[in-house]
Amino acid sequence: MLSKNTVKYIQSLQQKKLRDSSHCFIAEGPKLVTELLKGGLFTCREIYALPQWIQLLPADMAEFYSSRIFELEDFELEKISGLSTPNQVLAIFMQKEMDPSPDFKNKISLVLDDIQDPGNFGTLVRIADWFGIENIICSLHTTELYNPKVVQSSMASLGRVNIIYCNLEGFLAAQKIKKYAAVLDGKPLHNFTALKEAFIIIGNEAKGMKKELIALCEEKITISRVGQAESLNAAVAAGIILHQLVNK
Amino acid sequence: MLSKNTVKYIQSLQQKKLRDSSHCFIAEGPKLVTELLKGGLFTCREIYALPQWIQLLPADMAEFYSSRIFELEDFELEKISGLSTPNQVLAIFMQKEMDPSPDFKNKISLVLDDIQDPGNFGTLVRIADWFGIENIICSLHTTELYNPKVVQSSMASLGRVNIIYCNLEGFLAAQKIKKYAAVLDGKPLHNFTALKEAFIIIGNEAKGMKKELIALCEEKITISRVGQAESLNAAVAAGIILHQLVNK
Repeated sequence: MLSKNTVKYIQSLQQKKLRDSSHCFIAEGPKLVTELLKGGLFTCREIYALPQWIQLLPADMAEFYSSRIFELEDFELEKISGLSTPNQVLAIFMQKEMDPSPDFKNKISLVLDDIQDPGNFGTLVRIADWFGIENIICSLHTTELYNPKVVQSSMASLGRVNIIYCNLEGFLAAQKIKKYAAVLDGKPLHNFTALKEAFIIIGNEAKGMKKELIALCEEKITISRVGQAESLNAAVAAGIILHQLVNK
Repeated sequence: MLSKNTVKYIQSLQQKKLRDSSHCFIAEGPKLVTELLKGGLFTCREIYALPQWIQLLPADMAEFYSSRIFELEDFELEKISGLSTPNQVLAIFMQKEMDPSPDFKNKISLVLDDIQDPGNFGTLVRIADWFGIENIICSLHTTELYNPKVVQSSMASLGRVNIIYCNLEGFLAAQKIKKYAAVLDGKPLHNFTALKEAFIIIGNEAKGMKKELIALCEEKITISRVGQAESLNAAVAAGIILHQLVNK
């Protein structure tokens, strides 16, 4: 049986302020939680789960986490879940220390200028992980990394990419590696081949990149439009650009 | 002042059954509604809007739609809106007749096998529109086109792409144009160049493509993975594939 205080505490982690102060975050659903546990990407504090999830846990993991697993009934999981359809398990993980000044040499890095939609942001993290991008640099107004919707859509990729937040204008101005702005009026992406090192900058979903940032970029790239759609989704654009520019 | 019946009727359009029987659908927000009106892509039945939206409407449109515009107060828009944050305007459009048997020759067409997430589906429609894809063929279990979340994420692209639903196994078996399955164990996408005609098939978000459908395809293509993410988002994968295969 969950105490009122526990329910309150878990519910509070839906809010950024309380995630920040506790350095914790929530992940839900069998697939995501199991992947995060397997990968050992984040330290797990507590697991709240229905019996059917606990029964399917591999013996070694069940033993390792035994003191941190709490068996719930359906109605209890409903109380603490942030999902419209609670899905067997909710786990609380510790946020991890990111490297604030990684080495960007000989690497392609992704830069996000005010990405707002948590689903888009999570998808961008997954794309970065797919293409072996080690670092994502976010503007200060980009969605928070541990927002439950980011966590859900990034899947376990969240633990494999170094994600930092900073003032992008200052950051980009200080970089000597070539910077590529994804815009609507640049050179066709097809003209570019794989790059050894670069910063690739993706702008806000509605407004695109800030002018001051575009001015700091050596190259402007554009995904050629054949039809009539006004824009491409930011994550889709990032996927297309990375597929073209990352060396296989 | 909105009557109770009007409120009930508009709310009912959140349900597929009532969209089907009335042949109507809902679009919300100034950007989407204005684009749909401008494009004349769908016949507009009624527009429910706050004064600030109505005031900014171009004179010719204001006159043309005058008998169909109803001015609301904020609390009334909140009652009929399906959005968590109602946004100035809600419009009801008539669904349009799709062409059930278009000509696929000399064209690239997109085939969706059980895409479930409305946001993904809407994004796929927008991607198709960006790359000039005229036809999307959906399995019978793919999300409904006029689901409000599909409408919101497809933007006005919904009106520019011909979208049909059918039994994919029968459909694909009858086609002589080459079929390309997007899978995890095919030939690298980089080995392919622009195609003149093709069916490109994207599978369900969690399960991928059905085996029976893969068996009907002449080619299997895969987006090379450099990092460790388990999968790419279905819409992102479609965007990458179309960028590589559509002739510019």
